[in-house]
Amino acid sequence: MAARSGEFDLIARHFAPIAQRDPAALSLKDDAAVFTPPTGCEVVVTTDALVSDVHFRNLDAPELIAKKVLRVNLSDLAAMGATPLGVVLTAGYGPDVSEDWIERFAKGFGEDCAAYSVALMGGDTVGTPGPTFFSLTAFGYIATGRALRRDQARPGDLLAVTGTLGDAAIGLSVLAGDCNDLDDAARDHLKDRYWLPRPRIDIAKSCISLGKRFAAMDISDGLAGDCRKICAASNVGMTIDRMKIPLSNAAAQAVEHDEHRWQNVLAGGDDYELLIAGAPDYVAALGDQVTVIGTVTDKVGQVELIGPDGKMAELAPGGFDHFR
Amino acid sequence: MAARSGEFDLIARHFAPIAQRDPAALSLKDDAAVFTPPTGCEVVVTTDALVSDVHFRNLDAPELIAKKVLRVNLSDLAAMGATPLGVVLTAGYGPDVSEDWIERFAKGFGEDCAAYSVALMGGDTVGTPGPTFFSLTAFGYIATGRALRRDQARPGDLLAVTGTLGDAAIGLSVLAGDCNDLDDAARDHLKDRYWLPRPRIDIAKSCISLGKRFAAMDISDGLAGDCRKICAASNVGMTIDRMKIPLSNAAAQAVEHDEHRWQNVLAGGDDYELLIAGAPDYVAALGDQVTVIGTVTDKVGQVELIGPDGKMAELAPGGFDHFR
Repeated sequence: MAARSGEFDLIARHFAPIAQRDPAALSLKDDAAVFTPPTGCEVVVTTDALVSDVHFRNLDAPELIAKKVLRVNLSDLAAMGATPLGVVLTAGYGPDVSEDWIERFAKGFGEDCAAYSVALMGGDTVGTPGPTFFSLTAFGYIATGRALRRDQARPGDLLAVTGTLGDAAIGLSVLAGDCNDLDDAARDHLKDRYWLPRPRIDIAKSCISLGKRFAAMDISDGLAGDCRKICAASNVGMTIDRMKIPLSNAAAQAVEHDEHRWQNVLAGGDDYELLIAGAPDYVAALGDQVTVIGTVTDKVGQVELIGPDGKMAELAPGGFDHFR
Repeated sequence: MAARSGEFDLIARHFAPIAQRDPAALSLKDDAAVFTPPTGCEVVVTTDALVSDVHFRNLDAPELIAKKVLRVNLSDLAAMGATPLGVVLTAGYGPDVSEDWIERFAKGFGEDCAAYSVALMGGDTVGTPGPTFFSLTAFGYIATGRALRRDQARPGDLLAVTGTLGDAAIGLSVLAGDCNDLDDAARDHLKDRYWLPRPRIDIAKSCISLGKRFAAMDISDGLAGDCRKICAASNVGMTIDRMKIPLSNAAAQAVEHDEHRWQNVLAGGDDYELLIAGAPDYVAALGDQVTVIGTVTDKVGQVELIGPDGKMAELAPGGFDHFR
């Protein structure tokens, strides 16, 4: 066991200073925190657990791990169109974690709480003989009845995504020592995309402010699997045009060198971009915040992919096996 | 790895049926859950993580573990005087966990969600190569400004507790194979108290409905350490009379057989009874729901214990070392 303070000292020293910005946290010294959503709003709540060397690399900088723990949850709030309000964090530190590591984790966490105007309202710190884990619950608010849900896609809708796809999954390959065919700038870009998701809070708010029907979710498990979740919830199908999927320059370089890396674009997770379906006029109204990649169909549960040769095939949940 | 379904199947099969009672959960199929506290109320939020063989015994029945995971969090809500509303649960299942185990866990969890009128609103299920862990975040509501806080004790207050103390810690000794000097009924009672905390929601509501100043917290880490938290938050001291501490018949039998077991009563955790400070008239108004064990003093940060011989000594944070 690395030299480390007790639970209460750790909280007081490293996390209470982050929490003091918000009176709801009662300085992390009471049994629970208290907050009130704005009038006319609902509370939106989401939670994600991350385990060392399963969901993040134990080798990575603790500041980056902290930011990822926070941002993957803020991405879920964004997928509902919610404005972040606060979080509670539980941490189970493994025997190899030093207090220096925890201090750096708290520093990164505090920086991102400030950047996203999120209050740290409470938490729990425990020791575990196993790998370090974090579980974060984030809550936000949204005008009552306006949340972006997965069950609102309709045949005839356009399907669009924010940002670029595949970066994070290829970035993980870079971190694993692969992709030595890419130039340094490309490799740096892809690693950064793996480490630091950008929750698309602003674009989700654009959807909400249009006041129209949209279905939305964040792509955390990969396009192929996640688009099926909207299909299931909305009872629809989808057709996606591979040529229209937006790629960063780095990812474009990667798939140009090796066609098999399309697997990362179609089925790799961790991009945390939004997948949005809506009527053509309203998707158009989102402007260059999104890229149209396909359409919503009435072929319930079927997800089709138009390949580079113009031929159509099924996009399997695990990726594009049919094009291999 | 025991034969086990994937994450989405596990959730759909075992947890979605629990969640379907509440529309806020969106059947656990969206990115987040949505709820609204009653008008004029604040949201109260708390979170606790539990690790196998650190916070619960891996050998225990999964139904009981599930109920403990829920109840320790409901106890924190009770300590604020809040009415439970919903929970989100993250689970990290270790390699030894079978789907049968998860099914039994979900069964116990669902039973208690129903018993306490708590909605399962969301969660996350992951695998871990280490010990199984759970992290639960509970939400409740309370009339704005009425939460029971730790910083409201004043010199001259009476100090009271609910229920009996020491049972859970002695119960853990029983489960560890000790305490063979106790009769079967006593052993069964003590084990049950370790396994199944009773969140004191109703007694906390009695405090709230009196509309008077009370300080309160739940005793999860032991009386000796926890009363210091109220002292620190309220800037007061305390004097506790050991003879007044309420014991179950089983715990009374245990300390009669072995004086050292007072350590379990004074410093053992897991009882989840409430520690309440308030003006004498209002503590009296709580009637036989509580037992007065001492007074609040102006000796800031000092916790004194009156022993069976009438002599006063310091109650150390870890227990009653001075009486050994």
